[in-house]
Amino acid sequence: MKRIGMLTSGGDCQSLNATMRGVVKGLNVLEGNVEIYGFIDGYKGLIYGNYKRLTSQDFSGILTTGGTILGTSRQPFKLMRTPDENGLDKVEAMKATYRYLDLDCLVILGGNGSQKTANLLREEGLNIVSLPKTIDNDLWGTDMTFGFQSAVDIATQTIDRIHTTAASHNRVFIVELMGHKVGWVTLHAGIAGGADIILIPEIPYDLRHVIEAIKRRNEHGKQFTILAVAEGAISKEDAQLSKKQYKAKLAKRKYSTVGYELASQIEKATGQEVRVTIPGHTQRGGSPVPFDRVISSRLGVAAAELIAKEDYGKLLIMKGYDVTTLPLEKTAGKLKYVSPDDQIVLQAKHLGISFGD
Amino acid sequence: MKRIGMLTSGGDCQSLNATMRGVVKGLNVLEGNVEIYGFIDGYKGLIYGNYKRLTSQDFSGILTTGGTILGTSRQPFKLMRTPDENGLDKVEAMKATYRYLDLDCLVILGGNGSQKTANLLREEGLNIVSLPKTIDNDLWGTDMTFGFQSAVDIATQTIDRIHTTAASHNRVFIVELMGHKVGWVTLHAGIAGGADIILIPEIPYDLRHVIEAIKRRNEHGKQFTILAVAEGAISKEDAQLSKKQYKAKLAKRKYSTVGYELASQIEKATGQEVRVTIPGHTQRGGSPVPFDRVISSRLGVAAAELIAKEDYGKLLIMKGYDVTTLPLEKTAGKLKYVSPDDQIVLQAKHLGISFGD
Amino acid sequence: MKRIGMLTSGGDCQSLNATMRGVVKGLNVLEGNVEIYGFIDGYKGLIYGNYKRLTSQDFSGILTTGGTILGTSRQPFKLMRTPDENGLDKVEAMKATYRYLDLDCLVILGGNGSQKTANLLREEGLNIVSLPKTIDNDLWGTDMTFGFQSAVDIATQTIDRIHTTAASHNRVFIVELMGHKVGWVTLHAGIAGGADIILIPEIPYDLRHVIEAIKRRNEHGKQFTILAVAEGAISKEDAQLSKKQYKAKLAKRKYSTVGYELASQIEKATGQEVRVTIPGHTQRGGSPVPFDRVISSRLGVAAAELIAKEDYGKLLIMKGYDVTTLPLEKTAGKLKYVSPDDQIVLQAKHLGISFGD
Amino acid sequence: MKRIGMLTSGGDCQSLNATMRGVVKGLNVLEGNVEIYGFIDGYKGLIYGNYKRLTSQDFSGILTTGGTILGTSRQPFKLMRTPDENGLDKVEAMKATYRYLDLDCLVILGGNGSQKTANLLREEGLNIVSLPKTIDNDLWGTDMTFGFQSAVDIATQTIDRIHTTAASHNRVFIVELMGHKVGWVTLHAGIAGGADIILIPEIPYDLRHVIEAIKRRNEHGKQFTILAVAEGAISKEDAQLSKKQYKAKLAKRKYSTVGYELASQIEKATGQEVRVTIPGHTQRGGSPVPFDRVISSRLGVAAAELIAKEDYGKLLIMKGYDVTTLPLEKTAGKLKYVSPDDQIVLQAKHLGISFGD
Repeated sequence: MKRIGMLTSGGDCQSLNATMRGVVKGLNVLEGNVEIYGFIDGYKGLIYGNYKRLTSQDFSGILTTGGTILGTSRQPFKLMRTPDENGLDKVEAMKATYRYLDLDCLVILGGNGSQKTANLLREEGLNIVSLPKTIDNDLWGTDMTFGFQSAVDIATQTIDRIHTTAASHNRVFIVELMGHKVGWVTLHAGIAGGADIILIPEIPYDLRHVIEAIKRRNEHGKQFTILAVAEGAISKEDAQLSKKQYKAKLAKRKYSTVGYELASQIEKATGQEVRVTIPGHTQRGGSPVPFDRVISSRLGVAAAELIAKEDYGKLLIMKGYDVTTLPLEKTAGKLKYVSPDDQIVLQAKHLGISFGD
Repeated sequence: MKRIGMLTSGGDCQSLNATMRGVVKGLNVLEGNVEIYGFIDGYKGLIYGNYKRLTSQDFSGILTTGGTILGTSRQPFKLMRTPDENGLDKVEAMKATYRYLDLDCLVILGGNGSQKTANLLREEGLNIVSLPKTIDNDLWGTDMTFGFQSAVDIATQTIDRIHTTAASHNRVFIVELMGHKVGWVTLHAGIAGGADIILIPEIPYDLRHVIEAIKRRNEHGKQFTILAVAEGAISKEDAQLSKKQYKAKLAKRKYSTVGYELASQIEKATGQEVRVTIPGHTQRGGSPVPFDRVISSRLGVAAAELIAKEDYGKLLIMKGYDVTTLPLEKTAGKLKYVSPDDQIVLQAKHLGISFGD
Repeated sequence: MKRIGMLTSGGDCQSLNATMRGVVKGLNVLEGNVEIYGFIDGYKGLIYGNYKRLTSQDFSGILTTGGTILGTSRQPFKLMRTPDENGLDKVEAMKATYRYLDLDCLVILGGNGSQKTANLLREEGLNIVSLPKTIDNDLWGTDMTFGFQSAVDIATQTIDRIHTTAASHNRVFIVELMGHKVGWVTLHAGIAGGADIILIPEIPYDLRHVIEAIKRRNEHGKQFTILAVAEGAISKEDAQLSKKQYKAKLAKRKYSTVGYELASQIEKATGQEVRVTIPGHTQRGGSPVPFDRVISSRLGVAAAELIAKEDYGKLLIMKGYDVTTLPLEKTAGKLKYVSPDDQIVLQAKHLGISFGD
Repeated sequence: MKRIGMLTSGGDCQSLNATMRGVVKGLNVLEGNVEIYGFIDGYKGLIYGNYKRLTSQDFSGILTTGGTILGTSRQPFKLMRTPDENGLDKVEAMKATYRYLDLDCLVILGGNGSQKTANLLREEGLNIVSLPKTIDNDLWGTDMTFGFQSAVDIATQTIDRIHTTAASHNRVFIVELMGHKVGWVTLHAGIAGGADIILIPEIPYDLRHVIEAIKRRNEHGKQFTILAVAEGAISKEDAQLSKKQYKAKLAKRKYSTVGYELASQIEKATGQEVRVTIPGHTQRGGSPVPFDRVISSRLGVAAAELIAKEDYGKLLIMKGYDVTTLPLEKTAGKLKYVSPDDQIVLQAKHLGISFGD
């Protein structure tokens, strides 16, 4: 009988439970009895040996629930290599927990940083199967991560609701969406919600072009303008600063978020009222959309198939509509950015959407 | 054949179109042919004679749509009595438009301030029927305004989604909801969403009590705390300032909203991470919930019944589950506040919810 | 320390869990420690002593969940007085369970039939507090039952979706909704969804009038007609049959539901394609709407308040927006029907809706 | 200035308007002024010269609306070659309308049958660009059709709601979903909704295996069983009949739908109560999900790009997450069926789902 560890790491997202359910249902069918150990709050649970023994019953009824039944925490990769406040070597501690529980395999659900740690554990000799979790869709190697379409769904609903109220008054609306480094959520929700302007980290904006796009709409008799803005959107000017200079500038900035800063700049330049909406962590919450539940169930089952074959060291990915795998050493640590030359960006421009570039 | 003017005034909300559809469908049944004149952007359209002639067709298919097909604008009552920049007397201008179009009646959909202007026009001799619009539910005399339950629905969905993500991490979440002067939306959404702490303008909070409530939850092993905070929530300290002093204090405040200020204070006092979500104008947008569509249709039809009977000068209201009327002079200008002694507040406290008082 | 029994009886609905959570949270605040015994599958659990001891933890996180954590079953009142297959006297058995567990009070969440049994148990000397559950809103004495607005929400969403597809083709659509004896759900959802024709049990229809209403729409150039039909809708002809005659007729009817029968009749009479949609039990399922969660939480807490005061034998009700009580002997066994003279029916007619009468 | 015709054909679906909006927005950007002619009710409008001249304004605000602003109708391919009741040659009539309006290109949004007619018109010398519309996802050559994910969304919500009510009682629930010939919607919604048994046309079922699967769940202490059944699901026995024999059998069948028939068979075999839910045309209605809006916008814009390049005779398709094209002669008339060997079917079986095969 195999003994399987499992953990969810990094920011939570909508389809973590559905994915774990897929793993366990798959193991039930393919392996019959297995022992499942769930680590609490991500790698922290593995480091400090904080876990619970789980039964099939624990995974029943969680296909549709948000969050993670295991809890999660952010454990940046660079901290993994430094001892904790008591001098504990975290990597050795994780290996020790794995050995102590005599695990056959560790299933890791995580985003980019968590995949790096997963690969580190693989290098240290642990059997790893990992699963592509993130609302940001920024994991290199997979066409789609679970959580992404659910986040896009909520972000789009926000823009939808702003649309009706925007059309009643004569205003500019800024919807600030998740994405510090990558703009996938903002790009997809912006197209799906019919935003007029989309600002994302990968395509720095020129404030004058943003203002011009708003004025052009006014000239064409449009009653309102909606901007979908990633929280990591950056001006061309700021994009040329060093990381240090930019942080210094942020610290001095009057407004805590890019949305409020843009609002102030646009009000000054156009005289129009600007309103800001920040759905924030709602983008990570609630029940996953059916699309995510399907890919999560499939990816989860595929993890069980790998475990049944004892084929370890892989990240499960979506390639088109197929589930397949990539070796962890190839994917770990690589981000998938929006490129200004991506087909979808050019198509968005052909829809008349301005990126302020 | 009667000639009816119609306008929507003040902040928009979800069921304005459903209400106007009710008026027009009712007139079709009760009066046969009527002429409908819709004023653009609220009282502004009446002042400057900006209107369009509408047919039944214009009101078809709008039962479920957000916003208002007429547009709206805020025209504070106190400005009504002062001439515009060209010296135009606004009240006389509105009367002139009414006479010019030879209207039998003016139907006004508006909140508290708009009702005051409605009553003014009544005093000036116009035939008025008015309808209780506002997401804030703060119109004195009616048990329920249309828009309110739709706003509560969206606000509650926001808290719901935060719940799952809050339970995955170990954090405090602040959901800042609409309500500058009154707390009805926050109170209802807070109960419906299972918030742990509710802060509203009518019940000033003591920061120490808020902190204590959070710490008590931690001591009881709760993983997270959710605060539903009205944008007009105020501390006991600030509530004792004069209006002028309070404005001066706000101007100097580092954080633009009460949510961010509380977040900073709680982080400092507890050491816990705090996240802020501001659904903002989404609370006014999107399709009305069925509850609102039903009362809007009924209130709208009841307006048509009054017009058929030429019974003017009334505000239509909900009393329990009946539609009835109040004379405009009795209701105009009065706000309906949450009282600390309201049954629902005591019941919320018995549910274990803290108001920080 | 008080010992409280609790059960949910009859058809399930959306806000049962929210209500029980309200009771338990209220008891925690008002009574401190209490012992809660939950009976499994309604009165059956009370009869056969099938229960579980529940803690506050069991009621955490269930504010938003559908169904009932206790399970439920239909136990018609008339069967309560007849012994079971083993000759067991059910009433005596329920009393025995109550005495064995030494309960202070039994909290009963149920609809009309369940309230009759509740009153019977009161007459037999048990301390009862009961709560008005049903999607049908047909409990006499209360303005509103919990579950109703949630059912209306789903029924309305069904009509909404049919609307867009109906407008694309040129068809008649029948949406068959829940309600064997009463038409509240169909009436409210019909108004909220903009149905053209509403057929309910309380207002028998004349098929010719239904056909005429459809033809009139065609003559006015309308592309489609939508009928909201309660599953218990009945023609004038059939309404005059004896119960026995009607049952005999139903048994011979080719179509299993009134929706399919009407579809066939309308197709024959108009030559138009007719489509039938039956959302069925979805109307009982899923998360309760915020409106229901608020009244459930309030009613539940109010039950705790009665228990704290040892004020038994009452049904908790909504009167307008207040929670209050009625003695069980006054309400048990009475249904609240739609009357053709109700304000809301007349208003629906003034909206141009045909009831086929 | 180019002159473009456009039509929507076959059963309607959720993202038709979003797609047409994409075409027109793309033409605005790429071509500047164009003349758009919309044919009413699909090919019928083209045959009988029933059209309207459309402006950009007509395509504003329709990104989120269900149905089609042009109307649609089913015009089976085999009827295209036969003259109408007045002896009119339909193909020649369509060509005549095209020539009369001096069109540069005809944009066709349609499913399998409509694509065959599109290809016929191409063979007859018309410039065609066609777009892959259908909730059924059964168009050969494209990974995904628009409408599909929206239909899956609604079908899944139906199963979700049944889940909570199923868990409260002890019952079998059948959710009958769209799909006469192909099972994609049922397969995806079944996985996403956590159905226990999935029956689709491509995998004929053995009733004994279905019954066994239900009994096995009961033995494992499961409270309920949910079946997702495509309306075209067929038993192994019936699958061996000739088309004619099967139709004769259907005509004699007591129950109008496979769902009700299965319900009766399962009730007889297991003694359990069975309930049937038929969301029907709701699966085609309402606002498209963001996923569909994004691919619709992209496919629409890509059609505009083809028109700008005068690159005709193509079907636009999704290949993974890219938009690309296939020659119409290669795709027209081919259906994409679920295969029992598809990865997703095997994965579903590994999740423990029975296909009754």
